[in-house]
Order: sequence, then structure tokens, then C-alpha cells
Amino acid sequence: MGERKVYLAGPEVFLPDAVAVGERKKAICAAHGLVGLFPFDNEVVPVEDGPPVSLLIYRGNLDLMRASDIAILNLSPFRGPGADTGTSFELGYLTALGKPCLGYTNDPVDYVERVRRGGPVTLDAATGYWRDASGLSVEDFGLSDNLMLDHAVAMSGHATLRRDARHDPLADLAAFEECVRLAAMMPHP
Amino acid sequence: MGERKVYLAGPEVFLPDAVAVGERKKAICAAHGLVGLFPFDNEVVPVEDGPPVSLLIYRGNLDLMRASDIAILNLSPFRGPGADTGTSFELGYLTALGKPCLGYTNDPVDYVERVRRGGPVTLDAATGYWRDASGLSVEDFGLSDNLMLDHAVAMSGHATLRRDARHDPLADLAAFEECVRLAAMMPHP
Repeated sequence: MGERKVYLAGPEVFLPDAVAVGERKKAICAAHGLVGLFPFDNEVVPVEDGPPVSLLIYRGNLDLMRASDIAILNLSPFRGPGADTGTSFELGYLTALGKPCLGYTNDPVDYVERVRRGGPVTLDAATGYWRDASGLSVEDFGLSDNLMLDHAVAMSGHATLRRDARHDPLADLAAFEECVRLAAMMPHP
Repeated sequence: MGERKVYLAGPEVFLPDAVAVGERKKAICAAHGLVGLFPFDNEVVPVEDGPPVSLLIYRGNLDLMRASDIAILNLSPFRGPGADTGTSFELGYLTALGKPCLGYTNDPVDYVERVRRGGPVTLDAATGYWRDASGLSVEDFGLSDNLMLDHAVAMSGHATLRRDARHDPLADLAAFEECVRLAAMMPHP
């Protein structure tokens, strides 16, 4: 029974010190008997006259996801009230593959509260929906993001972990480490 | 050989007239010999002491995606420079299922240009990356969103269709209709 592999998804790949953050995540995994797989973004070697770098990264990430046994996703808000679109894509991909997905966010409030930070959110008495300044309804299910994301994570056994680390949402790893502890306790497949 | 089913993903489910927009999308599909499946969001009937409504919607959407032969996704920016997180999740889920995915956006510019609308984006000479005001790198691959989304769509045969309909990004259906035309030409499985 080999060590289980954990795909490490999240927008920290966009930090200036992305590689160092990835190494810290891998070290936490190793301390719990797991092998962390950090996205390929920073390790692609372009080939002259070869496929575009972005396609190499795409293929590399799909390969890592397929090779993983479990995933831990950083669903902290990124350039808006919601999670990173790439991380959201990966949660969907992993869910369809049947990989157990643990998720965390370093912004602990409900999604509707995060939308409210960007402008007024008012109750539409006719429908019972909350609406933003554009009239678009705002999900108010007590979840941390779009319901597809929250329920995909919850179906693996644990609701998205929420922690207030808004001072450093992409690199604070306390909630991540809690996910690693939960991953280490998951039964081997 | 029955009519093919097309899953219709996008944040227009949050419009006040979501049901009407869904009906227009289904009518365009029907005019091209396809059956449109609009997300379940607006059709869930809560059951007393039953599962939460959000879980019913989640399950309903997964069922529709699995039942579909093709998907068309509205990847227009939503509450920020990137696509809706729920739609991004669904693109990942459909990709892993091997469903051909067509995508469109009603904001035609590259992702880096959309980030620039929200604040300065500057070149980090040391690394060659563009960085936003927080120092986070901004993908600059000539794509319309995170590379995972663009390449997932492109692998189905057509790059994300870009059209300037920023006056009505969630309900303008010209780019959608072009996707339906492309879907109708796809070979039967």
C-alpha cells in the first residue's frame, strides 16, 4: 500500500513565491504520510516549435489530477467574491473522476456577505431572492461559494473549511494543514 | 438516432428573467435540431424535512450534465474578470466526462485586459510575468480566461467564441447561437 497522492489546487500558483508555497504544502503533506502534487504551472519547459506553454500546463495539470488519490483545493476568493476559475474547473474535473475533494477558504463569511462588500445587496420581496446592484440574484444558502462548489466538496465528507486568514488568503496554510489531517484519516481506496 | 441533448451552462440563471432566457436558448437549440437542457436552478421543488434546496439543485445539475451529449457554456465574466465559478466547475465536470464543450464570452478581450480594467497590471522584468496591484501574476497567453478553461473548450474543436456584447453579457444570445450552429454540425457519437 503506497503513499497516497494529493493534488494541491489553488490560486497560490499566481504568487511571486508560488514555488516556495508549493514546497511548504508538500512538506506538510509529507509530515502526514502523504505525497503532495503541486500544479505544473511553474515547471513547464517550452519546446521550440512545440505546443503552446499554456497547453503544456493544461495537459500537465490533467495528468496530475488523474494520478492523484485525493485533492485539497484552496477556494479562497480570487479577484472577486468567488474562487479562482481554474481551481473551480479542477474541482469539477476531480469530482467527475470520483476523487475525494477537501476544500478550504481563508475568508470565512458566506458568499452573500462577500458580494455585499462590493456593493449593495437587497431583498427582492417578489421572489425572495437577494439581488446585487445589477439585479442579479445572489445565492443565499449559507454556503461559501456557488452551490456547485460547496456541495461537491461536502459530498466527499467534509464541508469547506472556513478560516479567517484574510491578511494572507493565498499563502496562510493553517486551514490547509487541517485539510491534510482530514485527508490522512481518509480510508485507503 | 434521437435528437442530441445540449447542456446549457452559464450565469444567466441569476438573471431576474432566467427562466425566459432559458426558454429562448432552448428554442434556438430546437431550431437547429437539438434539445437544450437548462440548469435545474429555477425548477426545484423543496420537500419538507427533505434535503436542502441547494443540494437538490446540485444533484439536478449533475444529472443533466450526465444526460447531455454536448455542452454550451456562457463563460462571460461574472462579478470580476473571470467566468462564473459554477460554470467553471461545470466545464471541468463535463470535460472529465468526455462531453464536447463549446464556450462563448460576450466580453471579447484577453483576460489580462479585463484584469487591467480593475487596476494597474505591470510587467515584472525579473520573471517576465504581468502582475496585478497585489503582485499576483496575470496569465498572458492570449486567452479569454484561466488557461484550464480555454484549453478545455479548445480541445473539443473550437476556441472559445468571443463577441462584444458587453451591454448584455448574460442574455445576448448571438454568440450562443453560433455555438449551437457548431454543435449541430458535430458528428453524432
